[in-house]
Amino acid sequence: MTISPLATPFPSLPAIGGVRIGTATAGYKPWTRADVLLIKFAEGTAVAGVTTRSRCPSPEVELCRERLPQGRARGLVVNAGNSNAFTGAAGRAAALAQGEAAAALLGCATDAIFQASTGVIGVPLPRDKAVAGVTAAHAALGAGDFAGATAAIGTTDTFPKAAHASALVGGVRVELVGIIKGSGMIAPDMATMLGFIFTDAAVEPGFLRAILAAANARSFSCITVDGDTSTSDTVLAFATGAAGAPCITGWDSAGADAFAAALEDLCGQLARLVVRDGEGATKLIEVRVAGAVDDASAHRVAMSIANSPLVKTAIAGGDANWGRVVMAVGKAGEPAERDRLAISFGTTRVAEAGAVVPGYDEAPVAAHLAGSEVAIGVDLGMGTGRARVWTCDLTHGYISINADYRS
Amino acid sequence: MTISPLATPFPSLPAIGGVRIGTATAGYKPWTRADVLLIKFAEGTAVAGVTTRSRCPSPEVELCRERLPQGRARGLVVNAGNSNAFTGAAGRAAALAQGEAAAALLGCATDAIFQASTGVIGVPLPRDKAVAGVTAAHAALGAGDFAGATAAIGTTDTFPKAAHASALVGGVRVELVGIIKGSGMIAPDMATMLGFIFTDAAVEPGFLRAILAAANARSFSCITVDGDTSTSDTVLAFATGAAGAPCITGWDSAGADAFAAALEDLCGQLARLVVRDGEGATKLIEVRVAGAVDDASAHRVAMSIANSPLVKTAIAGGDANWGRVVMAVGKAGEPAERDRLAISFGTTRVAEAGAVVPGYDEAPVAAHLAGSEVAIGVDLGMGTGRARVWTCDLTHGYISINADYRS
Repeated sequence: MTISPLATPFPSLPAIGGVRIGTATAGYKPWTRADVLLIKFAEGTAVAGVTTRSRCPSPEVELCRERLPQGRARGLVVNAGNSNAFTGAAGRAAALAQGEAAAALLGCATDAIFQASTGVIGVPLPRDKAVAGVTAAHAALGAGDFAGATAAIGTTDTFPKAAHASALVGGVRVELVGIIKGSGMIAPDMATMLGFIFTDAAVEPGFLRAILAAANARSFSCITVDGDTSTSDTVLAFATGAAGAPCITGWDSAGADAFAAALEDLCGQLARLVVRDGEGATKLIEVRVAGAVDDASAHRVAMSIANSPLVKTAIAGGDANWGRVVMAVGKAGEPAERDRLAISFGTTRVAEAGAVVPGYDEAPVAAHLAGSEVAIGVDLGMGTGRARVWTCDLTHGYISINADYRS
Repeated sequence: MTISPLATPFPSLPAIGGVRIGTATAGYKPWTRADVLLIKFAEGTAVAGVTTRSRCPSPEVELCRERLPQGRARGLVVNAGNSNAFTGAAGRAAALAQGEAAAALLGCATDAIFQASTGVIGVPLPRDKAVAGVTAAHAALGAGDFAGATAAIGTTDTFPKAAHASALVGGVRVELVGIIKGSGMIAPDMATMLGFIFTDAAVEPGFLRAILAAANARSFSCITVDGDTSTSDTVLAFATGAAGAPCITGWDSAGADAFAAALEDLCGQLARLVVRDGEGATKLIEVRVAGAVDDASAHRVAMSIANSPLVKTAIAGGDANWGRVVMAVGKAGEPAERDRLAISFGTTRVAEAGAVVPGYDEAPVAAHLAGSEVAIGVDLGMGTGRARVWTCDLTHGYISINADYRS
């Protein structure tokens, strides 16, 4: 597996009080790497989460949804190498058994255990390996760090992905760490985005849920590699309270604004890391849409551009093909008028008022497109709605990863 | 340009009374091939059409929309090599000038002229070449046939595409011929689907509009190569009445059912020909969805599968990756339940009741996927809604055509 040309170095991460990490090898595939992660949380840890909108979710996703409303977590279990998706009653039973084993090991209620799995679809999680794996990870608790945790949850990721942010809450510095996997893909697997956020801030679960949902809307919901939505996508945020900062219960609490901003910053970092590891990616593309009738409309136009195979192949070829951007705006079905539309690449306006700009010079655009980070700007000229989304280019690498094999 | 491996031979086509064909070289690109088509219709010819839903349509599309309501046509003008899309006032003025020239040559009102253009975007149609081209095509009227017309409207098509159907109306045999172009693509062009249907039946314009809309919903609206919608897609149907059959004015007219069925058959043939010439296509894929809550829901699920890059690359690789079909069903957002879902490849059921079938044998599926025509079947188990759509696989050829160049 070649490392993505858009990879960034693994960051230096602080430990988070109230978070103990253990990993082990369950052997979901014929490998010796760690493929089970167990994290033990301090008593009172708050949890919030967002999960895939797929109508065919994995049992782990279902269990998270069932357990999230009570808002408290004592354990997190993640399996890599088997997504357990579309595995019927056998898969659900295996997930339940692994969760019960984790609860017994940690001495807590089963509904305080949160689970996620990623990897091959359609093969039930092997129950014995799953239970033995989480038992071994429990024996290793405290020996692991976030780098080890990130390695244990990866599948076909070409580099480990984590990020860090901090905020002042009532004069106390709180740390936020996030780890994430996603976007590589092998036969016959399906990429799953799993993100886990840990903070030593104290946050009331209902408020954590609200600010995670808001941060998600501006980060994970704004990225696309190929427009295909996994059955298992899950982002969970855990707040242990170990920093000793005052508890954040709502927008009026000390540090609420700063913490929410740090959480959104962290989610944005993690989301862009996934795009940087998009299959076959050679360029990170930011699509900025302004002038839509509202923000939701701007988002749909931006995603239409970001998911267009023609736009993504043009960027791969370093081609300033603004006609394909026009096409993608046109097909979005959102309020737009050809003759008010303006398009930029980088800082260069290429088209406006429904036609190419007079005296258009492609040289600065070609220079921008030759870089590894590309910005496409669209102004619809209809209103004040704005959106920003991220994607990657579409290259032979994507085809090779996803078509050049038999499972 | 390599001919698509899915190409079919050009069919033998009857002449259609009331249709006179002329082609010429306007020279929209540095070539010597014909790139302007003029067709003269007998007086009284009825016309109906469907055009792109893009919010950024070409001026030719706008002119068609303005002229279609009156329902009568005397001329059709098609330019290949320049789509005239997103060209502002200059492009519209050139299209108007070419239409006025055609009307003067044919001695009819300008609003009886229908126009379409395909090719490079963002470059105004050169007015002088357009007028000279249509004048030369007028001088050649009567010398051309449907094969020549098909050749004149193609851009990066790898083979010429036409189809034929017939029906009995009041005891008189009427013929329907359709020609179509679309789906090839070169720098910095955008594919445009242009389809033209000619019949010697006599049909009242309002009824022609109704049955063309219905046929379109089951043919052109059911194909996708890459989910990208052109600014210029246009299908026009012309009925000259030259066969002398009784005029079809509504469903109660003699032969109305037979004629509508022939029209739908013809549209289906033409639509599948476009998919057969999809960029980089090596396999024609039919997606059949049953058991949806209604037909519209089934169509959206089918298009979600047909537009999924992961499904399309799996088929390219001959990989029976039903997990990706599950994913594409799940992301469609339509009513579905994992545990009622069944999936087939060809005639082999691979998954049902939310899991792989017991004793699943991949051999017959692999054999089916090795062929050049692949069927994916999905039963949602929710209701009686059905849909059928066609697409092609996603291969290195698509990337090569769309990314491996600089414009």
